[in-house]
Amino acid sequence: MSKRAAESQKREPAARVRLFLEAPFEAGALVLLPPRALHHLGTVLRLAAGASLLVFNGRDGEWRARIERLSRKGGTVRLERQVRPQLEGADLRLLFAPVKRSRLDLVAEKATELGVAALGPVLTARTNAERVNLERLRHHVVGAAEQCGRLTVPGVLEPVRLEDLVSRWDAERRLLFCDEAGGAPIGEALRREAAGIDAARPPRWAVLIGPEGGFASEERAALRRLPQCLPVSLGPRLLRAETAAIAALSLWQALLGDWHR
Amino acid sequence: MSKRAAESQKREPAARVRLFLEAPFEAGALVLLPPRALHHLGTVLRLAAGASLLVFNGRDGEWRARIERLSRKGGTVRLERQVRPQLEGADLRLLFAPVKRSRLDLVAEKATELGVAALGPVLTARTNAERVNLERLRHHVVGAAEQCGRLTVPGVLEPVRLEDLVSRWDAERRLLFCDEAGGAPIGEALRREAAGIDAARPPRWAVLIGPEGGFASEERAALRRLPQCLPVSLGPRLLRAETAAIAALSLWQALLGDWHR
Repeated sequence: MSKRAAESQKREPAARVRLFLEAPFEAGALVLLPPRALHHLGTVLRLAAGASLLVFNGRDGEWRARIERLSRKGGTVRLERQVRPQLEGADLRLLFAPVKRSRLDLVAEKATELGVAALGPVLTARTNAERVNLERLRHHVVGAAEQCGRLTVPGVLEPVRLEDLVSRWDAERRLLFCDEAGGAPIGEALRREAAGIDAARPPRWAVLIGPEGGFASEERAALRRLPQCLPVSLGPRLLRAETAAIAALSLWQALLGDWHR
Repeated sequence: MSKRAAESQKREPAARVRLFLEAPFEAGALVLLPPRALHHLGTVLRLAAGASLLVFNGRDGEWRARIERLSRKGGTVRLERQVRPQLEGADLRLLFAPVKRSRLDLVAEKATELGVAALGPVLTARTNAERVNLERLRHHVVGAAEQCGRLTVPGVLEPVRLEDLVSRWDAERRLLFCDEAGGAPIGEALRREAAGIDAARPPRWAVLIGPEGGFASEERAALRRLPQCLPVSLGPRLLRAETAAIAALSLWQALLGDWHR
């Protein structure tokens, strides 16, 4: 939370409460609170009818709303006015081999803070986790989007096998392949990309992070054959998968994305 | 773990086991295993006498060693030969306002993977956590150093009040101040620094991350008055403290540190 946000929170405790709602927004509309929000708003934050909060639905910007009714069983908010227009973020995806549950939660939270448009699991030869709980991922991206001030919630993609990902690769999407077996230093590679950017045609990108056991050599070769592939290295130390994801997304945002505006 | 490391692990299960030891190293020396390693080596990894592992002490590089004796009560390894010489890392510190315990553990682990020489808590006007368990931090940095392949273990600094940090600031150390209230975009600021670097005189740096409630305005002003201070912004979304730390350290390593070699 920024200093200014913290100060405004002192003046009006509910001012920084942000909630993602699915409903379409218009001034004066009454919107049902989702069941997941009732406990948090009522019991944790002790809000009641009349409290003000910010809401967004991923399409209509950010709005100020006021609680009309709130109990453990249900509640509603009344939409007052738009306070921020909708902004389109970069078309940046995070593709990752599933890791242990607590680290996967972290990947979902951090990718959301770092502005990805979507994230999705990729099943590789050495992927340890067989099943991925997409509902759990979705829960984490919604919470992180509310907390970090985004106006959208990242999409959660269905798991895909690496061979299918490669064979159906979108010709218009660049692939930042974090290759533990080597590649150009990520800082220099992204600086070169930044120099060649066509501002009128914002690029689509995906960051790919492998499993803890690394990609198999045939997987690496198939990825590197994609003409959209930019293989990069993340330095001399072995990074855990979630560290690599956060590092690569931060560098992308700082050098190509919305951190440099 | 890299692909190559994973393959060597298939051939010789203990090859990638790495252990930090305090003792000085020389060929043929017998070194006592620290109590914290006994359970992990014996019960978790099921190693026994004769198993090979890698050891480092932060001064003498990385050595191959062999277990001579291992039980729940104690054990020893015999040092065989040095496999990597000692390397000096960058003099990069992470200074952070303490956060919740699980997130603090994460900061310690990630800062270690990202190559900091030392990390330390800073107490600010809006710091929530009063006490910091330095032993716990130390435990996490040792584990992360073993896992990520470093040849050193970061130092854990005593907590310091922000006003003391500022008044005793080392004139030769630059301060990358991640200022939520604004600054130059971090990518551009570090690119400018990289252009002006004197390779013969590697700089000392510190990254400073504030508390969840932000710095107080007088704290921000005092930091910005330091001539060594480089205030930077980390984009338009509110990042949690640990995300900001990982992002800033990754950018520093990619643009000024050992990721660009």
